[in-house]
Amino acid sequence: MLILKLSCPDQPSIVAKIASYVASHNGNLLEFNQFTNSIDSKFFARLEIDTTELDVELDSFIKGFSVLGEALKADWHFREAPFKLRTAILVTKTTHCLNEILWRVSENDLPLEITSIIGNRDHCKTIAEKEGIPFHQIDMDGDKKDQGFQQIAQILRDENVQLSILARFMQILPDWFCGEFSGKLINIHHSFLPAFIGANPYRQAYDRGVKLIGATCHYVTSDLDAGPIIEQEVKRVLHSHSPADLMRLGRDCERIALARGIRYHAYDRTIIDGNRAIVFED
Amino acid sequence: MLILKLSCPDQPSIVAKIASYVASHNGNLLEFNQFTNSIDSKFFARLEIDTTELDVELDSFIKGFSVLGEALKADWHFREAPFKLRTAILVTKTTHCLNEILWRVSENDLPLEITSIIGNRDHCKTIAEKEGIPFHQIDMDGDKKDQGFQQIAQILRDENVQLSILARFMQILPDWFCGEFSGKLINIHHSFLPAFIGANPYRQAYDRGVKLIGATCHYVTSDLDAGPIIEQEVKRVLHSHSPADLMRLGRDCERIALARGIRYHAYDRTIIDGNRAIVFED
Amino acid sequence: MLILKLSCPDQPSIVAKIASYVASHNGNLLEFNQFTNSIDSKFFARLEIDTTELDVELDSFIKGFSVLGEALKADWHFREAPFKLRTAILVTKTTHCLNEILWRVSENDLPLEITSIIGNRDHCKTIAEKEGIPFHQIDMDGDKKDQGFQQIAQILRDENVQLSILARFMQILPDWFCGEFSGKLINIHHSFLPAFIGANPYRQAYDRGVKLIGATCHYVTSDLDAGPIIEQEVKRVLHSHSPADLMRLGRDCERIALARGIRYHAYDRTIIDGNRAIVFED
Amino acid sequence: MLILKLSCPDQPSIVAKIASYVASHNGNLLEFNQFTNSIDSKFFARLEIDTTELDVELDSFIKGFSVLGEALKADWHFREAPFKLRTAILVTKTTHCLNEILWRVSENDLPLEITSIIGNRDHCKTIAEKEGIPFHQIDMDGDKKDQGFQQIAQILRDENVQLSILARFMQILPDWFCGEFSGKLINIHHSFLPAFIGANPYRQAYDRGVKLIGATCHYVTSDLDAGPIIEQEVKRVLHSHSPADLMRLGRDCERIALARGIRYHAYDRTIIDGNRAIVFED
Repeated sequence: MLILKLSCPDQPSIVAKIASYVASHNGNLLEFNQFTNSIDSKFFARLEIDTTELDVELDSFIKGFSVLGEALKADWHFREAPFKLRTAILVTKTTHCLNEILWRVSENDLPLEITSIIGNRDHCKTIAEKEGIPFHQIDMDGDKKDQGFQQIAQILRDENVQLSILARFMQILPDWFCGEFSGKLINIHHSFLPAFIGANPYRQAYDRGVKLIGATCHYVTSDLDAGPIIEQEVKRVLHSHSPADLMRLGRDCERIALARGIRYHAYDRTIIDGNRAIVFED
Repeated sequence: MLILKLSCPDQPSIVAKIASYVASHNGNLLEFNQFTNSIDSKFFARLEIDTTELDVELDSFIKGFSVLGEALKADWHFREAPFKLRTAILVTKTTHCLNEILWRVSENDLPLEITSIIGNRDHCKTIAEKEGIPFHQIDMDGDKKDQGFQQIAQILRDENVQLSILARFMQILPDWFCGEFSGKLINIHHSFLPAFIGANPYRQAYDRGVKLIGATCHYVTSDLDAGPIIEQEVKRVLHSHSPADLMRLGRDCERIALARGIRYHAYDRTIIDGNRAIVFED
Repeated sequence: MLILKLSCPDQPSIVAKIASYVASHNGNLLEFNQFTNSIDSKFFARLEIDTTELDVELDSFIKGFSVLGEALKADWHFREAPFKLRTAILVTKTTHCLNEILWRVSENDLPLEITSIIGNRDHCKTIAEKEGIPFHQIDMDGDKKDQGFQQIAQILRDENVQLSILARFMQILPDWFCGEFSGKLINIHHSFLPAFIGANPYRQAYDRGVKLIGATCHYVTSDLDAGPIIEQEVKRVLHSHSPADLMRLGRDCERIALARGIRYHAYDRTIIDGNRAIVFED
Repeated sequence: MLILKLSCPDQPSIVAKIASYVASHNGNLLEFNQFTNSIDSKFFARLEIDTTELDVELDSFIKGFSVLGEALKADWHFREAPFKLRTAILVTKTTHCLNEILWRVSENDLPLEITSIIGNRDHCKTIAEKEGIPFHQIDMDGDKKDQGFQQIAQILRDENVQLSILARFMQILPDWFCGEFSGKLINIHHSFLPAFIGANPYRQAYDRGVKLIGATCHYVTSDLDAGPIIEQEVKRVLHSHSPADLMRLGRDCERIALARGIRYHAYDRTIIDGNRAIVFED
């Protein structure tokens, strides 16, 4: 099975051309999602193609698409399934997001191979060891922060990591880091963005007296908590909930929003469109 | 703008063929939804086609599709937009579903022309009069029930009604009626089906002590409360809610589920597939 | 039936003292809600008291409570049920919130007597007339704004209005107005506050690419969109929803959040605690 | 801190009497929840009492309550906090509910001490070993079922288990077992009860074409899937979801509903009232 993700300027006959290319080589469309942003005249699509009856080699099929892709002035990307994304998880102290990801990987909910867990504290080390995953502890305190990010970047490069998940990693990323790994960094923020940007969102939520708290899974850009949103989740709260209660209840939002966001990304169901994310939900 | 709804046995190249037909006449696909039921090998699709640049008359475009449609062994249906479905609303005593529909029609949320309101009680007469819609009171008590349904059917035929909405119409429809208007009858049941079929679902829900109540919008078949489900909505309740509270809270579920269900149907976003309804949500 | 709402500094034996006072006069507690804010050491309670067996006149019972109330250094408030709050609805152009309130009043969901509908445009005039409710059109354009608010205030005073609902009233209230009617002004803001304060929240939500939109019912203070929140409601949206879709979908959030917020206020289920609202949900 | 849970026939002055008893010994009410079922004239309450300033020993305070408790013809129960309930988890093959409970115990979300994990298959053995919890594998196939339940009962007795959680334990319990551990058995059923009782609820849900799936946490009685409901959770699904997708998505409902249900039970927030459960949510 092949996944094709594509975006291009809107123009006549895109669907016909793409579907005809697939059909011309005996590919069978299993799923076809498209979205035309009529405000900006852009076209986005995602296809799942059954390739068992292809009349050419998979490589030729993929290469052969270039003629059409270039004619459409498209960005496109093929991925052969099944696959596992080489993934690093960055953590600090809290374990719930890490545990959620590990559990879902073990249930085959998420097509990831966790290559490493990287922490600026050692709280998650035991979990990593239980699962037999390498744990890298990186000192980022005080003036070691820059060097720390250099070390992390090196690990990601060395291990050919395709996706890095900030699973409650409590460090602000430098611009160069966001730039180098652009589109490959997913964060979970513990509020319903754009409300409560920055530190202590549950305390902020308590002080504001909101009746719903939330969590936001988003791509990381150099603009703090402002990257394209992939998924959000909310939960009702009461006046009687203390900031500690909000933190406890919010964990469920964080786990669910992060897990769904990762899944959408991993299966190529997301396309970044400026500051918005197209998400072809399944 | 043209909406095309289609279902057929699954087979190679369907998307390519349909999209190519549209493109061959200079139609522009605004939206393309498809679903392949791999369990039963059936294909379903809905297209929105911008026809402003068509190189043939609309009629020719529609007629010309028959060659492909028949080759695919498809059922299909075109609808030109904008349109208004000629619609009758059947009621008994309660007014909230009726009011919701009328309000949404006035807001252009629902593309309906309400030709008549039909009641076996007169509770909704004042509302009909305020809105300037003909109200037909049909006596269905005791042995007048059969005759009553004959009268209703005659009204629907005379007025060329395309859709009949059972907006808390508290009468069980005879088989011949369900048969004659099959696919054109939408009901709102005041429970989360298949739980609490039949009478007094809120009382049943109270007795069972459920923590969520619901409402179900579905197509009517001769099998009571068992037709294809279009939409469902639920709401949390507490042990402290009496059956009367559930009734009050449930009204919000009923209004929302019914309104959404009607909207999906009216814009041809539903396809009946045996006892299930495909719903291409918007 | 009597509703008692009370707040006071936290101290020993409050519940015992209040419940004993009620019991001492043969009152029967139907419902007792309390909340102790341990962060600020404040106590809040709401009681429903069956007074059919009282051994004194209702007035004496209410007056007699003062001894305890003062000893507790409490703020308190009694209300005899059933009752109807004299209510004004302020509107501009859109009708959905107005319609929702009127419908719920007619269903006895909301214990309000609508004394007047006040609009700075005439879009809601027809609805007011259909319902037989006085409609006051107040010109607030340009330099007539100050005078307009004076006129509105005069209407509220003349009609002894107990509650004013800003049902999508698109004018920023002056400080003196917020001050004079403090605690008696309820607004519906068409976003999930504190996100998207100010104008065009649906456009802001589209631009930010959020996956959930919302509405917030809150008390009005002189700080725009920052008053105590009574109720919030959210709804999932997709990348394919245009700003116009968000506006359409958001209307359902607005109607539900506003209706619930009004209900909580009207039945004395809310207590303002600084910038937060205690809400004893039912 | 002391938790008091109480139910009795409705009668005058209950709250005053209970609160006065607490106050008379210098107890401080932290939280007071009550519910009067006016249909059946029953009274239910739950109190959290700060006992740091009590003027008597805790034991005397608890014993001294008997006079009032008996006068009210009440059932009541005190529990001193903090505490940990001795808990057994019964499993078959699937691990997600087990993992969820273990994770929440480790996060101090659930006040449980897991004394044993009991399985009629060995799929969960590795998890138990990783956590250092004794795993009992009980053969229940064919004619060994009766003997198996005898063995399980013996373990529960030997270990003084206070709560048994059926975390997707795929065996129907015999009547004697339900009777012996009545009120101490919590099950998670993978549907929105009373819909889809019995086997394969996700397949049933697919066949019926519902738009929401759910999970139900309930006390076990000898009547299959019909015990008092503690908590329910639902999730929207689409026509495109296969039975396998429903199973995957449903896992999140199951984990959340089960965890919340256990929490309510463990903190004495539930009172069984015939076939309904009073739940004082926090």
